[in-house]
Amino acid sequence: MNKNSSNIMALAPNTSNKRETVCIFGTGDFGRALGHKMIQSGYPVVYGSRSTQISNLIPKDAEVLSHAEAAQKAAIIIIAIQRQHYNFLIPLAEILHGKVLVDISNNLKLNQYPESNAEYLAQLLPGSRVVKAFNTVSAWALQSGTLDASRQVFVCGDDVEAKQMVMNIVRALGLTPLDKGSLLAAQEIENYPLQLFPMWKLPIFLSLGLTAFFFFYCLALDVIYTYIYEKNNFSFFIAITIPNRVCPVMALILLALVYVPGIFAAIIQLYRGTKYRRFPDWLDKWMLCRKQLGLIALAFASLHVVFTLVSPMRAFVNWRMSKGIISQALNNKTEPLNTTNAWISDSYLSLGILGFFLFVLLGITSLPSVSNNVNWREFRFVQSKLGYLALILCTAHTLVYGGKWFLSPSAYKWYLPNIYMLSLVVPCAVLVVKFVLIFPCVDKPLTQIRQGWERNPKHSE
Amino acid sequence: MNKNSSNIMALAPNTSNKRETVCIFGTGDFGRALGHKMIQSGYPVVYGSRSTQISNLIPKDAEVLSHAEAAQKAAIIIIAIQRQHYNFLIPLAEILHGKVLVDISNNLKLNQYPESNAEYLAQLLPGSRVVKAFNTVSAWALQSGTLDASRQVFVCGDDVEAKQMVMNIVRALGLTPLDKGSLLAAQEIENYPLQLFPMWKLPIFLSLGLTAFFFFYCLALDVIYTYIYEKNNFSFFIAITIPNRVCPVMALILLALVYVPGIFAAIIQLYRGTKYRRFPDWLDKWMLCRKQLGLIALAFASLHVVFTLVSPMRAFVNWRMSKGIISQALNNKTEPLNTTNAWISDSYLSLGILGFFLFVLLGITSLPSVSNNVNWREFRFVQSKLGYLALILCTAHTLVYGGKWFLSPSAYKWYLPNIYMLSLVVPCAVLVVKFVLIFPCVDKPLTQIRQGWERNPKHSE
Amino acid sequence: MNKNSSNIMALAPNTSNKRETVCIFGTGDFGRALGHKMIQSGYPVVYGSRSTQISNLIPKDAEVLSHAEAAQKAAIIIIAIQRQHYNFLIPLAEILHGKVLVDISNNLKLNQYPESNAEYLAQLLPGSRVVKAFNTVSAWALQSGTLDASRQVFVCGDDVEAKQMVMNIVRALGLTPLDKGSLLAAQEIENYPLQLFPMWKLPIFLSLGLTAFFFFYCLALDVIYTYIYEKNNFSFFIAITIPNRVCPVMALILLALVYVPGIFAAIIQLYRGTKYRRFPDWLDKWMLCRKQLGLIALAFASLHVVFTLVSPMRAFVNWRMSKGIISQALNNKTEPLNTTNAWISDSYLSLGILGFFLFVLLGITSLPSVSNNVNWREFRFVQSKLGYLALILCTAHTLVYGGKWFLSPSAYKWYLPNIYMLSLVVPCAVLVVKFVLIFPCVDKPLTQIRQGWERNPKHSE
Repeated sequence: MNKNSSNIMALAPNTSNKRETVCIFGTGDFGRALGHKMIQSGYPVVYGSRSTQISNLIPKDAEVLSHAEAAQKAAIIIIAIQRQHYNFLIPLAEILHGKVLVDISNNLKLNQYPESNAEYLAQLLPGSRVVKAFNTVSAWALQSGTLDASRQVFVCGDDVEAKQMVMNIVRALGLTPLDKGSLLAAQEIENYPLQLFPMWKLPIFLSLGLTAFFFFYCLALDVIYTYIYEKNNFSFFIAITIPNRVCPVMALILLALVYVPGIFAAIIQLYRGTKYRRFPDWLDKWMLCRKQLGLIALAFASLHVVFTLVSPMRAFVNWRMSKGIISQALNNKTEPLNTTNAWISDSYLSLGILGFFLFVLLGITSLPSVSNNVNWREFRFVQSKLGYLALILCTAHTLVYGGKWFLSPSAYKWYLPNIYMLSLVVPCAVLVVKFVLIFPCVDKPLTQIRQGWERNPKHSE
Repeated sequence: MNKNSSNIMALAPNTSNKRETVCIFGTGDFGRALGHKMIQSGYPVVYGSRSTQISNLIPKDAEVLSHAEAAQKAAIIIIAIQRQHYNFLIPLAEILHGKVLVDISNNLKLNQYPESNAEYLAQLLPGSRVVKAFNTVSAWALQSGTLDASRQVFVCGDDVEAKQMVMNIVRALGLTPLDKGSLLAAQEIENYPLQLFPMWKLPIFLSLGLTAFFFFYCLALDVIYTYIYEKNNFSFFIAITIPNRVCPVMALILLALVYVPGIFAAIIQLYRGTKYRRFPDWLDKWMLCRKQLGLIALAFASLHVVFTLVSPMRAFVNWRMSKGIISQALNNKTEPLNTTNAWISDSYLSLGILGFFLFVLLGITSLPSVSNNVNWREFRFVQSKLGYLALILCTAHTLVYGGKWFLSPSAYKWYLPNIYMLSLVVPCAVLVVKFVLIFPCVDKPLTQIRQGWERNPKHSE
Repeated sequence: MNKNSSNIMALAPNTSNKRETVCIFGTGDFGRALGHKMIQSGYPVVYGSRSTQISNLIPKDAEVLSHAEAAQKAAIIIIAIQRQHYNFLIPLAEILHGKVLVDISNNLKLNQYPESNAEYLAQLLPGSRVVKAFNTVSAWALQSGTLDASRQVFVCGDDVEAKQMVMNIVRALGLTPLDKGSLLAAQEIENYPLQLFPMWKLPIFLSLGLTAFFFFYCLALDVIYTYIYEKNNFSFFIAITIPNRVCPVMALILLALVYVPGIFAAIIQLYRGTKYRRFPDWLDKWMLCRKQLGLIALAFASLHVVFTLVSPMRAFVNWRMSKGIISQALNNKTEPLNTTNAWISDSYLSLGILGFFLFVLLGITSLPSVSNNVNWREFRFVQSKLGYLALILCTAHTLVYGGKWFLSPSAYKWYLPNIYMLSLVVPCAVLVVKFVLIFPCVDKPLTQIRQGWERNPKHSE
């Protein structure tokens, strides 16, 4: 305790007047980049290196000494060497005792080692105060000063004071430190920069697969069938018509898939009579990627909206309309307004607009800064109530639009159902089951179960 | 001080090696859910319970002891019991002395008790270190692992070290602790999960009321009047035509209402000659919900844009256009381009687009993450300067569009003014008064007053 | 150490029971506003003032004493006086010893003094614990309670405990403290409220200049040329047609300009054979405003989309279409569908939609809350890979749309190239050079250089 408090005393005047020396072990790329940046920010930098001669790559204002000499010059030592060479630090254990060691290393694969590099370092040198930091920043970004993405530097460590010292350096370099707690968080921090949208993989592959399926389905029915049986070359449908059929179908199905796991969960809980048993793994995974499914559905819905809105600008649509008008004019007659048609056209457009509007609201609420500002009750209200309303409106939009096809035999080319019918299967099933689940006789026991009640508590474990 | 420092000593090795035992008082739903989650995260959990027999609901790796025994096993005790039973803790005061007590309770109503539950607990057990935490997380969310909304856990407490210990647990559970300061913040934290968009209530009810009024106004004038006097069944106007009249009117009026309280405030300050007296309550409330009014206005404006853009896809619009073209064709003549009409149509569209563009910019700036990144000067520039510009453009858009109706007697069905005229009253009034307020002879004293100057300081108190 | 710990002891019961007295030096506007707010939040406030008589402006629950007397009543003293009067505090040095002095001052210009006001204050009174805070909040906002923008209060200081005390007050006033580290951050904090979108100036002026140029270019070719040589008055083109030509051109050029500095940087590094030398200043500046350029490009692209989508609603477009249909009808013939035209029209629309979709994705990812949630690898993937894809799609969109004009002589009015051709110069150049840079024979040495390798390390210094 004595040592610590004298340290604080010593630090306080230093930080206000001039910056204290930082030592960097290792003259690799990241060590050099970090040294450059630190010298720019006013820190005296001393390098610890096996050979003190390769000095021309090193920033010229930095000193290069042996590891032992360098370590003695500074209270903070940045370990810019790879994990497999950490062993060479063991002889220096005495010099490094009480020093703040900053582990900045990254691995090549997720969970490459049983324990994180920082924890391994702490085990090797139990007398030192190990802090994990800087591993999420790239050397190139440090060098070029273009740190758009990762101004955030995750910091973790068991020693609060050591962590504070490192966080001050992070701030001085123009970055934002984020305290992630004790050294146990190091594993997570080391895995972080290796990820490439881990939560998005499954939803994206699912969407790509379904999109490809529906695209070729439409291609077969709309282009190839027409070409074979009606001798019309509608190959240009590939550009807009078919995408504008696939997008709404994908949006509706993916939106419905967002609500499927919740329904499965309810059924499982009702069947088991308890909430204290884990869901099957596939259901857990599905639940965790609902947000991503919803956002991809929103992307498809947005594309559908724009594809639809450009249709009056398409040469094909204009040609078709002209043909209709000219044939009326040549027959010397004007068709009267068909009120039923006007009702159908206006109501499916209106349903679609309102559904899309709610959908966009859901998307905005899922922005991190917005969802952090709502509480649990508000989030559930938006994501569950408004989400189901959006699903109802979008399903109704599709039903009103595609309704007339159901009974028309011409819709069954090659005896295959139209794509609209396929798209309605999942959402209709979800809505029907959900409708059953909100009946009081089903809803009441479910609510009880979710509040902790068990049907047969004796057998629950 | 001695005790604390020995505590720190004791903690440091613990956190780096293995996690320390946590005690949970109470085996209700939330206590069990939290225990499950903690065991998953590697914490040994011991339950304190009146009866040690109802153990089959409790996670199986947890120990169940009497309250006194359980409390002695851990430095942190989570009080998962209801406020009305806090009294039973008083006999345990000696055992709980110096321990960290985590109050996780919630109330059923806002401000149910005079003091917060956490402060009440601290009063009952003055020797313990009370920390408020976890109350914003739902048991169901903890259990199912789907914590989209409330990864944030608000933490407050008077003892910095105790708070730090609790925040470490929060982090270990995969949640984000947010330090809200001393125990005085507990009231606010306890009220937080009970709210359902408190700031949105007034603006939403206002908009619903106005929307209903304008909807029936349009219904009367456009559908019922036409049906009675012209025998035309335009009932399908309900789907798109009428919503697309109500939406822009609502957007314009709500946008104007955002700027009304600022104008009232300026007038009141000019009249009083001081800024050091409070505004009337209604004005304060109005000022605080300006952001919500503006966002609802933006929602209406967006709906108006989409409703307008789909119009070429409507059966009614196509029929009307065909009729016009066919009648020209049958009369063998082509009308020349009317340049005035082209100017009017293009300029109201253009004004509307630019106004909507600025409006969307305002909306984006009001996203929490964006507004946190701008300073006061920048925020005022966007919200005041660009906001007024948006209001001017939208008012001009409406004036150019609806201008021709003002003088036409056919616009006054049943002697009622057209809805466009109604919508222009508030925005025009706002713009005229604002125009007066920026005259130097008015602006100068107002600026002085806002900088702290008083007209007759003697009578200001 | 002794003194500090006794302070903590003394504070702990205070904060939980009632709030401790705060002293404010200076009775100017901000001092009064802050006092009002603090009294509202339950703090006893005492003012230190030269004259104790001007009390009627001061909140009535506050005491007014001489500086020395007031300072003795509180542990925290807010210095609400201007920097040039800081000298008068020197005689009070003994009384202020160990006290927390909160510097809230702002300057009139960026970097007005060599050291920040807070550091200057700390130099004058080395025995006091200086904390910088509150300077980003406006007095008017404090008074009126409308703190939409700047709920964030930046706090910095060398004494951790003093900083903590000030941050507790900030929280109690309903604001959000943000710890910016040691007093070295004061300069940055003092400059913050003086900025008005500093990063946006260059991109905005560049866009305004280019927009004006292209607007008059179009005006000359489309309106004036047509008026002179074809006697047609197309002046209404100013409202929509010309903006809808300028917007896509600006969007495409600005998007390409986002990727130009990266290409320059690669060429410079390849030429120099090292990454350890700084880029020229203009390149550094250009790199730092890429995000802003991209967002302005997105704004232009969005305007282009809406301007395009409203075109079926324009009187001119309807007139032109009617004319075409009527002339066909009068000639008694229906033109067959031109499949090539349909392909061209559909594919440029489709390319444009997909390009805009990716562009919007890029915009969403650059929202602070989203970009904080992605790691470096993910951010680079989106901004670099998807960004180039968006550029390719938008360039292709323009090429397909404007392709037919290249060879038509009527496109060269007054021997000037059409605006589409001008817009394609920069993006095509960027894409061609980028295409060369991803060849393995160029990409490999570049990657090595970026990993720290040098071609001729001897001459690198």
